Order: sequence, then structure tokens, then C-alpha cells
Amino acid sequence: MLSKSQLQFIKSLHQKKFRKEHGLFIVEGLKSITDFFHSDYAIHSIYCTPKVEPKIDILKKKIKHYPISERDLEVISTLKAPQGILALIEIPNDPPFYEEELRNRFTLVLDTIQDPGNLGTIIRTADWFGIKHIICSEETVESFNPKVVQATMGSLARISIRYTNLHAFLKGIKLPVFAAELNGQSIYKTDFGKEGLLILGNEGNGIMPGLVNDKTQRITIPRFGNAESLNVAVSAAIFCSEIGKKYNLDKS
Amino acid sequence: MLSKSQLQFIKSLHQKKFRKEHGLFIVEGLKSITDFFHSDYAIHSIYCTPKVEPKIDILKKKIKHYPISERDLEVISTLKAPQGILALIEIPNDPPFYEEELRNRFTLVLDTIQDPGNLGTIIRTADWFGIKHIICSEETVESFNPKVVQATMGSLARISIRYTNLHAFLKGIKLPVFAAELNGQSIYKTDFGKEGLLILGNEGNGIMPGLVNDKTQRITIPRFGNAESLNVAVSAAIFCSEIGKKYNLDKS
Repeated sequence: MLSKSQLQFIKSLHQKKFRKEHGLFIVEGLKSITDFFHSDYAIHSIYCTPKVEPKIDILKKKIKHYPISERDLEVISTLKAPQGILALIEIPNDPPFYEEELRNRFTLVLDTIQDPGNLGTIIRTADWFGIKHIICSEETVESFNPKVVQATMGSLARISIRYTNLHAFLKGIKLPVFAAELNGQSIYKTDFGKEGLLILGNEGNGIMPGLVNDKTQRITIPRFGNAESLNVAVSAAIFCSEIGKKYNLDKS
Repeated sequence: MLSKSQLQFIKSLHQKKFRKEHGLFIVEGLKSITDFFHSDYAIHSIYCTPKVEPKIDILKKKIKHYPISERDLEVISTLKAPQGILALIEIPNDPPFYEEELRNRFTLVLDTIQDPGNLGTIIRTADWFGIKHIICSEETVESFNPKVVQATMGSLARISIRYTNLHAFLKGIKLPVFAAELNGQSIYKTDFGKEGLLILGNEGNGIMPGLVNDKTQRITIPRFGNAESLNVAVSAAIFCSEIGKKYNLDKS
């Protein structure tokens, strides 16, 4: 049985402040935890109810695990309906970063995405289409926020996400840069080539001033109906599909 | 000032049971309320704080409106951050339904979509791409749920949404039927023609047994990466984009 202070420690990781202090974040559900187990992330510990325990043989051999009651799991879980298993995972240090890694592929650049569900869905969609890197402005919601982690459905384990000052980052970059905007060239008539960055802007305000310059190609998803705008995760998905289709079909 | 019982009445409409009983639902924010004002929906009444009041001249002429304090608005609002104005709108009666309305266009068929954010986002995306009708299974989350209404960003005012038994509905239909599935033909290689229905399944379980038959064309969004699945609102968006592009570009 876990002590009250152990439960309180895990519960504190619901908050960004304590995740940062302890270098740990929470992942829930056997499928997502297994995705992290097969990644470069280090799993710190696992808390598992008797119902799920028979299914974690492989994890048990390598990771500290603690039995937990359904009732205690409800205390530490970030979900309305806990899934029988919760893991603490170590927040990795940012490795040094080389522009070379972004060559011959497409990378998403997120400017101040605020809704955790949107960020999580974008990460999941990027993983579906084979995107490896996402660069976020420092104002974008933290990728270890429990709602982000949940919405990625395990894809967070496979995508490299980096937070940085986008002005400085884009200034130094030599790759083609595309920006999702309302008054640009049609996405359906754009040749994206074989590599590049795609900037997606904030839910309410779009891309911040100064980020897009003369060299940036402004691209638009044409509107055939009447909605004023698209959800940013939906825009990201349509861009990933258009780019992924052309890029991957060309390679095959 | 509104009485306690008036506030309680409006607050009761947060629940489906009372929306059904009173035939009213809540819409918040000036942009969304204006979208409903310009639609066939009848607005029952408007509750507006002094800050937003100067902006509602046009609405005021035609609709019963009540001043409300920021504090009372917090009581009746469905939002964490109320937007200064809330309207009660009448739930319309379902008009008789003719298959003819679905000819020469594409229509979404939603099988048991459970997350209100997903349904709202699908409605908003459909509106962007010029889709007019959405048919939902009876188990799909109610379109007048406040979280659905909010996620549609006003598009609910422009899309006809009908709840019905999908087995019976699809049995009688003569239009081409497509189904979003994991093991079908590539969406990028599909000719959708000029009309049809597209079935999208539940978030966890996909399309229910018996709904897809020999005549249904199973269509898949190819996976280039590693995610196990796509969010259903993301899948819907990619289908709307592919169909909208081909259908609208052909017309132009």
C-alpha cells in the first residue's frame, strides 16, 4: 500500500511546477505506457491495480512497480475514468539540436497553441503521417501536461518536441518555410517539395507578428462553405495529409 | 435583475433532460449568437452584461433581452470564461426528411460519436467545406450539448443535423455509401463521384456491426508513421478536404 505522502507526491505532478521540480510526468493506460517503454524515455515507476497486474509481465521485469488499490489510483489519476495503471516517466534533457535533423523531411512549428487537446491531437496526427519533429514556441502549452499526454494516445513517445524562441529559431533556418494562413495560395495547388517547416498559429490570434517574412510561403485551405475558421488541429491534419500524400507517394 | 428562479431555470438547461423538457438550448458569445440570428433558428431571449450591451443594437430590436451582471452570468454560463452574452434558442422540430435533399452533395453519417468536442469540431469542419447535412445515430452525443455548441463556433446554425436509427436509414438509401475504415482502399486513390454518404465510427469501437455491407466502399487514410489511429474529428477533416477538393475543383 502507498503512503499518504507517496500519493500526495504523485498527485503534485498534475501541476507543471512540480513536474519541472521533480523532472517527472504522468502517463496512464497500458497501451500508452507500453509505447513509452519501447521508446528512449526512462520509466521511473509503475502503479498498477490487481485487475491490470497480470498484463504487465514484460514491464515488471525492468521497472519498479507498486500494487495500488482502485481507490488510491482514483486519488492520483488525472483521468475521470482511471485505466488501472499509471506510470511516472522521466522528463528528458533537451539534447543539442542540429538543423541537419530537419533535412529531407517536414516539421511542424507551433506558435502558441494553448489548448492541450489541440496539441495532443496534433502530436498524434503528426505521428500517423510519419513526422518526427515538432518545434513549439515557449508560450505553447507544455507537452507533459496530462491532457496533452492523454490526447496523444502514446504518440508523444515517438515524436521529438522542442520548445524554443521561434523568432530566433526561424532566423537561423535555411529550409523552405510555409505558414498556414487565411489569405495565401491554395494548399491543393502548392508543391511542397521534399523538405520544409510548416508554421501553425494560435487558436484565436493566428501566427504572431514578425514570424512570417517575405520568404515564407503563405498557404491556405480553401473554404467551400461558411465557417469563419478551422480548428488548428484540423488545419494541421489537412496539411499533414496533403504533404504526407505528395511526399510519400512520390517516394514510392 | 434576474430572479433566483430565472437563474435556476437557465442553469437547468445545462442538462439534456431540461433542454428536452423546455425545448431550449444555450448559445454563448456574440459571434455565435449572431450566426443563429441569421439562421432559421428562433432566439427565445438574450442575457447581456453592460460591457457587451452597446454591441447588440440589431439583436435588441427583434429579441427579448435582459441586462445581467457579470456575477449572475457566471452562474448561468456553461463556460469557464463567460463571454458577456448568452442566448436561449428554441430547439426546432425535425421537419419531414426526403432523400432528395442529399442528392448531388456529400453528407456525413456519424455512428455513436461520444465526445462533444469531436462532434462540435466535425460540425465546424463540415461547414467550412460546404457540407449541409449530418446524420447521427441515436447514440451520438446531443448536438445541443453546451460543449458541442461551443466547439462548432457558430456553425451549428448552418448545418442540418438529424438523429435517427442508422440501420433503418441506410437500408432505404440509394446513394453511394463510403465508410472510413482501417483496411480499405486509399482515400487518395478513390473517386468519390458527385454524391454520397460517408460513415465515420465511434472513437473507440469504430463503425458498429451490420452498418457496412457489400455495397459500401471501405476507405482508409494511409498511415505513413506509427500512431495506432487518428482522432475521429481529424479523420472527418481529411475526408472533407479530399472530397471537397475533388468535388469543388471539378465544378469550377
